[in-house]
Amino acid sequence: MIRIAVDAMGGDFAPKEQVEGAMRAIKAIDDIEIVLYGDEVTIRPFLSDDTRIRIVQSEGTIDMGEKDPIAAIRQNRNSSMAMALLSVRNNETDAIVSSGATQALIAGAHILVGRMKKMKRTAIAPVLPTALGKPLILLDTGGNLEIKPEYMVQQAHFASVYAREILGVSTPRVGLINIGTEEGKGRELDRAVFDLFTANPHIAFVGNVEPKDVLSPPCDVLISDGFTANVVMKTIEGTAKGMGKMLRQELSKGFLGKIGLLLSMRNLKRFKQRMAAEAIGGAMIYGLRGVVIKAQGSSKAFGFYNAIRQAAHVVRQDVIHKVGDVIEKDEVNNAKTA
Amino acid sequence: MIRIAVDAMGGDFAPKEQVEGAMRAIKAIDDIEIVLYGDEVTIRPFLSDDTRIRIVQSEGTIDMGEKDPIAAIRQNRNSSMAMALLSVRNNETDAIVSSGATQALIAGAHILVGRMKKMKRTAIAPVLPTALGKPLILLDTGGNLEIKPEYMVQQAHFASVYAREILGVSTPRVGLINIGTEEGKGRELDRAVFDLFTANPHIAFVGNVEPKDVLSPPCDVLISDGFTANVVMKTIEGTAKGMGKMLRQELSKGFLGKIGLLLSMRNLKRFKQRMAAEAIGGAMIYGLRGVVIKAQGSSKAFGFYNAIRQAAHVVRQDVIHKVGDVIEKDEVNNAKTA
Repeated sequence: MIRIAVDAMGGDFAPKEQVEGAMRAIKAIDDIEIVLYGDEVTIRPFLSDDTRIRIVQSEGTIDMGEKDPIAAIRQNRNSSMAMALLSVRNNETDAIVSSGATQALIAGAHILVGRMKKMKRTAIAPVLPTALGKPLILLDTGGNLEIKPEYMVQQAHFASVYAREILGVSTPRVGLINIGTEEGKGRELDRAVFDLFTANPHIAFVGNVEPKDVLSPPCDVLISDGFTANVVMKTIEGTAKGMGKMLRQELSKGFLGKIGLLLSMRNLKRFKQRMAAEAIGGAMIYGLRGVVIKAQGSSKAFGFYNAIRQAAHVVRQDVIHKVGDVIEKDEVNNAKTA
Repeated sequence: MIRIAVDAMGGDFAPKEQVEGAMRAIKAIDDIEIVLYGDEVTIRPFLSDDTRIRIVQSEGTIDMGEKDPIAAIRQNRNSSMAMALLSVRNNETDAIVSSGATQALIAGAHILVGRMKKMKRTAIAPVLPTALGKPLILLDTGGNLEIKPEYMVQQAHFASVYAREILGVSTPRVGLINIGTEEGKGRELDRAVFDLFTANPHIAFVGNVEPKDVLSPPCDVLISDGFTANVVMKTIEGTAKGMGKMLRQELSKGFLGKIGLLLSMRNLKRFKQRMAAEAIGGAMIYGLRGVVIKAQGSSKAFGFYNAIRQAAHVVRQDVIHKVGDVIEKDEVNNAKTA
């Protein structure tokens, strides 16, 4: 049995959607059991079926707008997020899923779960829908704002293993976010990373990728530092939101337009679903000793269920050990070359 | 008379669309005359009306994919782009509009037109449509990848004057692109710029702006370094393109969907027009001794005409001198505080 810890109190619609998502996951996936961390009195009314689900009582939650996430975690060791993270560290569970505050989850994962051996930095990596119908891993969207080129090599290894094991891509291609496709483009960091990726035998590097191809990418993994990738993710979100608004305004103009809009309703809804990342699951935090999945703060039961499914899949495929092997091989390789 | 130099040979559809755009501008705007730089034999067939338009013969063009734009400009002093730029420097014209290669135009403008007194860096600043119906100035989308905080203050001054004089915003608000809205977010650069903007009496600073609000911005100017702002611009472009593709795929599904799509055609077209930046004009290169406007490489006559209109407007409003005054005042101010 794969044991999944759920932070039942984190997120905009907690604990209702988290509990419903957990029950849905239990029904759909045979080899998992779930531990809900949260307030039993609040959770119980939503838990209509507790097959393979138990509750562990926690006290308090980590606020979404927490200014000092590290302090928040240190001072709230009995919060649902902290207790769920600790359960992974103590090998009481195999993975944790949380819709709680991103920065607190990253900080908490560092402190309570700890980094993988030899992994220098963590990274957070959402999986985005594209116009090509295949998903794209984008990283690092919220970890290290300033980072060394060598650390990005490790993150590319992690993403490549993830793409192979979880997304089923046989040879995952990695692209570097840049302002031009030619070699030599970008900042000092980008040029250094370009050289390291090109030389590395474990990275199928396609070169620089301009963000104008972000929804039709020539790769499975798009990587940059934690500032740039976060900016890309939020610009996609902002453009999609803004375009959706303009589209509704324009489509509802005039008599024929209104009828057209009515007839297109179902298709527009499907379009909206396609743009939503919910169906794909959450963002994994790469580089930890355990599996930590960040589901969107606004997750409903379906989104949360998908994040649980994803967490189980990552455990089942033993992703973390496989990444460890690649990093090990890389070190041996570097030692030989040096 | 305002004298506009046109690089008639630069752009995907040169010289046809450039010449048609020029004739259209002459018809619409009374106080301008235009000099077309290019090959007379190629241009003449498109010039059905040469009222207030003359041709100056040039030799060769700067290639769009030029690897070394500085060398390209230096070695092609008789190209249409170089000659048009020089005409501004020599006060034979008041402004230049070009759809040619961006990097070559920036390099050429540096070499041939020169920077404004006391202006430390140039910046390129497109004006984008938003879902709020008002335009947004985004900078720097292609100049300085790595930049000092003080230089961004000068660029914010330029954008503020431009927004006031050209876009008619009485008190232009400036936002800093960042990964969170709270003070203290971002890289060292972002935090330093935040402090400088806050302290500057000539900048109406609204604080950090996340790119998820890029199409519904709480400001008139959005600023970051040349790498980040370029990434934002290209991500908007990529998301719009990708979403458009997905939308067409979804809307044309099923019988009712197809009818709906037919009825909505006109509205969808209007939506597309609204997303296109063409109607707003080109991107101005800030910080030069003269007015240099970069029209999109794919500009048609309408887009090019709008860029000419914009160039004339910038000359008429004497934007460059007004920016010079603010930078002067700022220096006096800094000297007092120091």
